[in-house]
Amino acid sequence: MALNKIGKRTMKLKNPPSILGTYSIVGSKEGKGPLKEYFDEILEDDLVGTDSWEKAESKIQEDAMRRAIDKTKLRLRDMDYLISGDLLNQIVASGYAARQLAIPFFGLYGACSTMSESLALAAMLIDGGFAENVICATSSHFSTAERQFRFPLEYAAQREFSSQWTVTGSGSTILSSTGTGPYITYVTPGKIVDPGIKDVANMGAAMAPAAMDTLINHFQDTGFKPNDYDLIITGDLGLIGKSIVLDMMKKEGYDLTGVYTDCGAEIFDPKSQDTHAGGSGCACSAVVLNGYIIKEMKKGVFKRVLFLATGALHSKLITQQGESIPSIGHAITIDINKE
Amino acid sequence: MALNKIGKRTMKLKNPPSILGTYSIVGSKEGKGPLKEYFDEILEDDLVGTDSWEKAESKIQEDAMRRAIDKTKLRLRDMDYLISGDLLNQIVASGYAARQLAIPFFGLYGACSTMSESLALAAMLIDGGFAENVICATSSHFSTAERQFRFPLEYAAQREFSSQWTVTGSGSTILSSTGTGPYITYVTPGKIVDPGIKDVANMGAAMAPAAMDTLINHFQDTGFKPNDYDLIITGDLGLIGKSIVLDMMKKEGYDLTGVYTDCGAEIFDPKSQDTHAGGSGCACSAVVLNGYIIKEMKKGVFKRVLFLATGALHSKLITQQGESIPSIGHAITIDINKE
Repeated sequence: MALNKIGKRTMKLKNPPSILGTYSIVGSKEGKGPLKEYFDEILEDDLVGTDSWEKAESKIQEDAMRRAIDKTKLRLRDMDYLISGDLLNQIVASGYAARQLAIPFFGLYGACSTMSESLALAAMLIDGGFAENVICATSSHFSTAERQFRFPLEYAAQREFSSQWTVTGSGSTILSSTGTGPYITYVTPGKIVDPGIKDVANMGAAMAPAAMDTLINHFQDTGFKPNDYDLIITGDLGLIGKSIVLDMMKKEGYDLTGVYTDCGAEIFDPKSQDTHAGGSGCACSAVVLNGYIIKEMKKGVFKRVLFLATGALHSKLITQQGESIPSIGHAITIDINKE
Repeated sequence: MALNKIGKRTMKLKNPPSILGTYSIVGSKEGKGPLKEYFDEILEDDLVGTDSWEKAESKIQEDAMRRAIDKTKLRLRDMDYLISGDLLNQIVASGYAARQLAIPFFGLYGACSTMSESLALAAMLIDGGFAENVICATSSHFSTAERQFRFPLEYAAQREFSSQWTVTGSGSTILSSTGTGPYITYVTPGKIVDPGIKDVANMGAAMAPAAMDTLINHFQDTGFKPNDYDLIITGDLGLIGKSIVLDMMKKEGYDLTGVYTDCGAEIFDPKSQDTHAGGSGCACSAVVLNGYIIKEMKKGVFKRVLFLATGALHSKLITQQGESIPSIGHAITIDINKE
């Protein structure tokens, strides 16, 4: 059995890496939502001076990474790796941002699970002695995602009530072998679960079983109960996926009432912001983590958080070929103590 | 400085993981090329019984992974992680193959650098005590890549002489904390280098500087000279990229004559196979590694190999927006001895 493994697939970190710096940038719509006070930067121009939404998304991610480093005492050259990804074909938002930073780069594709996928890998690489400091980042942009996955914005297509709204923004975390917390103490990687849903306007339902699979494995492997956490937060299942997780986890014997929510359910006000089933996109969980969660942990509001970003791994082409939507969720425990 | 780091960015593995099993599947064109004797399986039907090229690519990757495991004494449930990726939008060949295997999955996007990116990460995770056995895999398919990156095949578009031919196939490696080698002893991750080339029909020239950057860093960090290796092999720069690397490395003071080649230059016969500048695609370096290189190492023909898969991280959309092609190359040292 692997040295750091407990149970079937959870890793306990011997020397838990510390979150040294965070940065969150959001678009103007997200900047009017319930979490607006927590974000480091709210954009007025969602092109950020560029001539395409894709270039804009890349610029936003680059800014989030540079400014996360600025919040530490470190410099860009102190970073051993950059681990990032995004929703765009060939992860161009991340690739072109990584070009600007010019440090060793591991590109990921985990769709909206990218924030926890990158933190999971970074935490293990640091604990394993392969890095001191790692930048983790992801981004999404409403306008790049709509035209790639759904319709050109110019069509003004009607949105279904089960659909979610892609968050414009980027979140970045500097993870380090030094620092005073919060720490990443456990990692439970996800596996792909596919409940057979083919409706790309109902991602929450497609992704909920993958989140549950990781949650149940995490509880079984660690022996933790839901109340051992101050907050269990998935992302981005939205309002429909959140209610499925609450209901179905209860049937599995885990009552998450009072401790559980979802990043996609928190970022917008469903009553006033016309976002239907809530927020989505890689940036959704990334800005909720790097804006809201870490700041509340530093204030002592949350001492122990289970962060479980979820992703749907289909493409437009493959769903047109009749395939269902495979999903995944990676969980990390974030703790203000090393244990 | 990170515990396992030597020089600026190379990692020396304390307990070098062993390559326990490999499998290579290629299409019929590759199966007529100079390396045909080395591949485990040559396809007759490039749809492998499915109804789309994308589903076929995914099935080929799944087959390569299952059969690589079959070559070991292990079973699927002994695998701690699957680390894979491919060229397709949202890496659907890998995601849908991972769905069938149902083990913890880290999805990558490294374009044609995926084989060495996955092996680099897997080697560090195993050496760090986070896994015993990891499946690494990637795939590409001529027909999925042509329609996604270039033109629908039905157009019968003329190919430029500098263009490369995407390999149909998949390679998979089982990396393990146990075993008798060959071993992965060093990892030099790549960073993105962009020489400003915008011609997507000349990938070799676009990627050569990224390969050189990693090569030079590897030599500087380790103190190795080209002749410390029996084979230094990049992939997939093709014939043009290979000649650039040979010329430019000589100017940098590293004479690679006699020890260096490129996977894309080896897989096809340029005289008889009409492949212009050679092979490309994630599968190109993956099948050359898991077919040719590892088998020759086990026979003792090569004792020490530097394998450096290279990737171009653009998308069709972003090059249409006027962007140049950023590239990356990750290097791993494969050694029949642990040192």
